[in-house]
Amino acid sequence: MVSFTDNDIKAVQTIRTLALDTVNKANSGHPGAPMGMAPAAHVLFSKFFKANPSNSKWANRDRFVLSNGHACALQYVLLHLLGYKVTLDDLKSFRQLDSITPGHPELGVTDGIEVTTGPLGQGFANAVGLAIAQAHLGATFNKDGFPIFDNHTYMFTGDGCLMEGVSAEAASLAGHLKLGNLIAIYDDNKISIDGDTNIAFTEDVAKRFESYDWQVIVVENGDSDLAAIHDAIAKAQAETTKPTIIQLRTTIGFGSKDQGTHGVHGNPLKKDDTIEIKKKFGFNPEEFFAVPNETKEIYAGIAKKGAETEAAWEKLFGDYATKYPEEAADIKRRIDGKLPDGWEKALPTFTPADPAVASRKLSETLLAKLSVAIPELVSGSADLTPSNLTRWGNAVDFQPPSSGLGDYSGRYIRYGVREHGMGAIMNGLAAYGPNLVIPAAGTFLNFVSYAAGAVRLAALSHQRVIWVATHDSIGLGEDGPTHQPIETVAHFRALPNCNVWRPADGNETSGAYHSALTSTRTPSILALTRQNLPQLEGSSIENAIKGAYVLRDVKDAALTFIATGSEVSLAVETADLLAKDGINARIVSAPCLEIFAQQSREYQLQVLPDGHPVISIEAYTSFGWGKLAHESISLDTFGASAPAAAVYKKFGLTSDVISTKAKKVIEFYKSIQVVSPLNKAL
Amino acid sequence: MVSFTDNDIKAVQTIRTLALDTVNKANSGHPGAPMGMAPAAHVLFSKFFKANPSNSKWANRDRFVLSNGHACALQYVLLHLLGYKVTLDDLKSFRQLDSITPGHPELGVTDGIEVTTGPLGQGFANAVGLAIAQAHLGATFNKDGFPIFDNHTYMFTGDGCLMEGVSAEAASLAGHLKLGNLIAIYDDNKISIDGDTNIAFTEDVAKRFESYDWQVIVVENGDSDLAAIHDAIAKAQAETTKPTIIQLRTTIGFGSKDQGTHGVHGNPLKKDDTIEIKKKFGFNPEEFFAVPNETKEIYAGIAKKGAETEAAWEKLFGDYATKYPEEAADIKRRIDGKLPDGWEKALPTFTPADPAVASRKLSETLLAKLSVAIPELVSGSADLTPSNLTRWGNAVDFQPPSSGLGDYSGRYIRYGVREHGMGAIMNGLAAYGPNLVIPAAGTFLNFVSYAAGAVRLAALSHQRVIWVATHDSIGLGEDGPTHQPIETVAHFRALPNCNVWRPADGNETSGAYHSALTSTRTPSILALTRQNLPQLEGSSIENAIKGAYVLRDVKDAALTFIATGSEVSLAVETADLLAKDGINARIVSAPCLEIFAQQSREYQLQVLPDGHPVISIEAYTSFGWGKLAHESISLDTFGASAPAAAVYKKFGLTSDVISTKAKKVIEFYKSIQVVSPLNKAL
Ligand SMILES: [Ca+2]
Ligand SMILES: [Ca+2]
Repeated sequence: MVSFTDNDIKAVQTIRTLALDTVNKANSGHPGAPMGMAPAAHVLFSKFFKANPSNSKWANRDRFVLSNGHACALQYVLLHLLGYKVTLDDLKSFRQLDSITPGHPELGVTDGIEVTTGPLGQGFANAVGLAIAQAHLGATFNKDGFPIFDNHTYMFTGDGCLMEGVSAEAASLAGHLKLGNLIAIYDDNKISIDGDTNIAFTEDVAKRFESYDWQVIVVENGDSDLAAIHDAIAKAQAETTKPTIIQLRTTIGFGSKDQGTHGVHGNPLKKDDTIEIKKKFGFNPEEFFAVPNETKEIYAGIAKKGAETEAAWEKLFGDYATKYPEEAADIKRRIDGKLPDGWEKALPTFTPADPAVASRKLSETLLAKLSVAIPELVSGSADLTPSNLTRWGNAVDFQPPSSGLGDYSGRYIRYGVREHGMGAIMNGLAAYGPNLVIPAAGTFLNFVSYAAGAVRLAALSHQRVIWVATHDSIGLGEDGPTHQPIETVAHFRALPNCNVWRPADGNETSGAYHSALTSTRTPSILALTRQNLPQLEGSSIENAIKGAYVLRDVKDAALTFIATGSEVSLAVETADLLAKDGINARIVSAPCLEIFAQQSREYQLQVLPDGHPVISIEAYTSFGWGKLAHESISLDTFGASAPAAAVYKKFGLTSDVISTKAKKVIEFYKSIQVVSPLNKAL
Repeated sequence: MVSFTDNDIKAVQTIRTLALDTVNKANSGHPGAPMGMAPAAHVLFSKFFKANPSNSKWANRDRFVLSNGHACALQYVLLHLLGYKVTLDDLKSFRQLDSITPGHPELGVTDGIEVTTGPLGQGFANAVGLAIAQAHLGATFNKDGFPIFDNHTYMFTGDGCLMEGVSAEAASLAGHLKLGNLIAIYDDNKISIDGDTNIAFTEDVAKRFESYDWQVIVVENGDSDLAAIHDAIAKAQAETTKPTIIQLRTTIGFGSKDQGTHGVHGNPLKKDDTIEIKKKFGFNPEEFFAVPNETKEIYAGIAKKGAETEAAWEKLFGDYATKYPEEAADIKRRIDGKLPDGWEKALPTFTPADPAVASRKLSETLLAKLSVAIPELVSGSADLTPSNLTRWGNAVDFQPPSSGLGDYSGRYIRYGVREHGMGAIMNGLAAYGPNLVIPAAGTFLNFVSYAAGAVRLAALSHQRVIWVATHDSIGLGEDGPTHQPIETVAHFRALPNCNVWRPADGNETSGAYHSALTSTRTPSILALTRQNLPQLEGSSIENAIKGAYVLRDVKDAALTFIATGSEVSLAVETADLLAKDGINARIVSAPCLEIFAQQSREYQLQVLPDGHPVISIEAYTSFGWGKLAHESISLDTFGASAPAAAVYKKFGLTSDVISTKAKKVIEFYKSIQVVSPLNKAL
């Protein structure tokens, strides 16, 4: 049995006082949880955690997720003590402009932060994704005597995270998947912002996690019983056939006169309280950000051991490379964040002679080809596989081998009806490392909204996550308005750093996948049709990946139609109809507005020049089209339940109705100096 | 013990064949679950359910929620048999244009439908809301011998609903709240769209619900053991101190040659299969939509008994009215959907001399006053009470009396950190009846996105639900980009039938509440600041409820600023700065774009006339402003963690930066014929 010394206790108190000073200096933040979780953090990082602070990107490092991200003063303090690139000055600029210690942990901002947390429940599900990635890569690459990928994923979580549905979804799936290397430590402090958890959260958490088939371990004294915490983590590690949650009873704001109350949750402590705490912990209350030498030594030792651990792995990997050169090369390529050479050849192209195909079906073909070309592509669906068409023919399911339904090398994840969990798990998969896993998964476009919280964090965290969002409009027909997106695409277009694709045909669908796979710092949502789409004259992958392009140019254009997805062929039909009346209509296909916005102003004005009106056609809300079009043909109400053609007709989305409106527009703008919507002062 | 006869069996088979014919005729829909759940439906509606089909709005009716809404052929069949306004012809036009039998149940479209379901998990949480409403009204109005509100809420749910996080959130809260009149029947058919539930859903559902403190009853043979189903429901009713879930083992598509497989889930059955099923059930396969006389008789009997039940209640209510005239008058007013006379007097008004106040704080004052004026107003928060300021001083918590923390007459709901559940529960509260409960609840604006699925259904279902969405922008400061909304308001503005309010001061906040409370068919999201806002010259409730109005008019305007919320005072500041350079800027305050869009074209063009450029100022994405402004001052990236003023400065949202940009805009438009963005052809 491991023993802890006075120096460990001092280290714990150092973590507490550093977190306190950090929050006090900012005069903003959450002191309570860091003070409560300091012992668990110290035990975990000093005795178990395998990582090299001087190389935070080592592929087989243990992953740490602070799901209760508001406790990030704790994490920043630990990163500092461990020797990551977080200085005392960084702690002192907690929550200040352009610091690397923002109010909640952000991936990409701070060395050693694995995922962005704060929005509750997300980190929990991210950790499930990280654990899936480890299990998958282990099953794919490990060989006898060569545990190349065998890291643990540790996650701290609070009451708030466990109340959120997204964590419930992820927890159920993690139990099903028997993720033995996933260890959660639950800060059971009985306090949330509204007060005692007994006002809203009286469920039996342990029993709930048992129902998910997790191992549950209770530690009665998380405030000071370092040995018990140690034993619990050791026991968690020993159970390799299921995830573990350690229910750690702690006192929020331990040491404060208000400890154990919500008063210490989200505001800096009072000055006198801080003084008393420091005295109680044996610190000089006049000193701030103090780190005793004993603590420095402990943490220097941890860092040294971490460097040695990585070095040993590097040696192991060298031997592995000798024995398994092909696998090693693939791992190296992935770690370097490179797609396999020539992968683009998997993208099919089409001519107008090819048959009309639904873009979800085109996506199915693409995924089948890309699954061969890109071994790190991992697909899945939220229980809509036969509708999303996200599974290639010979796919193996990612399943615990004991299930007999697949194994951990499988690249198809059965997420269940858990869209939000799926989104946050995909973020975790992507966070494991650049090309180690590229996650893609399907649901109906309308239900990507259930995962809005996760999509937002993928965007904020610059993660390549691919949503295969089928049944993308009223074109899904009979399922009706409960399933027909109207606002969904506008929502995600409005979200920064999120590419929304709505391809119009086969070439554009190939372009969409090209972009999604090469946009390494941006999530992509591919909105795909249930219904067939003709192959268009003028489309190409090259055109598509400009975001918008002139599909059909005409002389003396009276107007330009700009359309997306299934409405591009409607624009073509309408232009043909107008041509019979001698009206020349240009057509712009705009599969991705975000990427079009990144093109040169010159190109943009070529696509949408001054001189004639632009009409957008899209079977969604007109909201947002004012930026690109003078007038909009749209659907600003909810849809309807009926066969697709009947729904399109009901809402006037037919070539004859649109051509009549187009004539009205031409007439209206005759007397007006028409400036391109893109021709702006700012 | 109740006994079932051959006629009951025939009724069950009738329900099955009717559902089959309904789906087959549409050539679209879900036959499996209706065939599996027909026995439970028959037992429930023939032996337990208290409702009067000829008056579907009777206040104390039992509520039925089909959370697995894709099984709606079942519900439509039952509504038809029971004598609601659903004819055989309506069944024959299932999923056809403008029918009253859409692809998923929609509140307001079909007589007898209580809530809109289909998006999985929502109905489950709606049922929790309906049960809360009953408990609350019972505690508020029932007297000894007068159980005016004592109905049960029954809900059918499938595997899909139980995988969704939203149902987990609601289930945990329902257990906490000990909702004894809530009875769920879980169609445990081991099948979801992807196949056997063992591929993704292997948790122990019974144990999970026990962990939430629900009563769990298992019925092994839900396909034909009517007596067991009966006993289970009776036992559920007998347990009045906690909700019950009946785990009903059924065979999906019972009777089909593919029964028990996902093949019968979401597509019409084959013709030969249908013929064999009808033969097996003793029906003529050549006959469609057949209802045997015995079945008609049973259901006529149920309807008759239902009418008698309501009549008895009306008599009871008459006696109640004699004894408790005040309470009865209040109930009657609420059922009639009227707010109390003079409630508007509770809305405070302000002058520029009044101090600057955060709009969340203004909202707190309003809620305190409105709580007195409008007794049906029920507030709450997703564990952010001290931040949202949603609780009035003397509020009683809605809690089980045994908790000692409140009682069921309480009007403040502690939702826990469960935004999606909260949203769907609010939809259920609103669904109980027009003014019986008016739900309002708080979270940070950014986390309304977690509840997107529920907000969407409130909008589609025309429900008055009020979101108190505080911390509405980068103005929240240090919590940083994980908590600062950028796209959120655009998302909900793009959603049809959803009013997004962003009041700029006290008068506008009063206007926002005025609108939210009187918009009986529309949910409202009130985006409120953390930071103080000055009281503006020119604002008033009357102006605010036009959605947008001229806050400051000037002669020879060089431009108009249109701004919302906290940016209106920034526009005022900027206009004052420009005035020093002799530039006249008009200011339009636009607290609610949706309501402005409903004003007359004439009024709209008065507010935003031709002749000079319009610049929008809003600390969100510019997405969507093209409809109202020529140019936008906006924030098209994520925010930053720092004190609020520093964040505003970082993103150029200060009067000096904006005034410089304004000059550039004026210059640019000098050479262009400037037409109002609202002056459109279509
Ligand atoms: Ca807590
Ligand atoms: Ca099922």
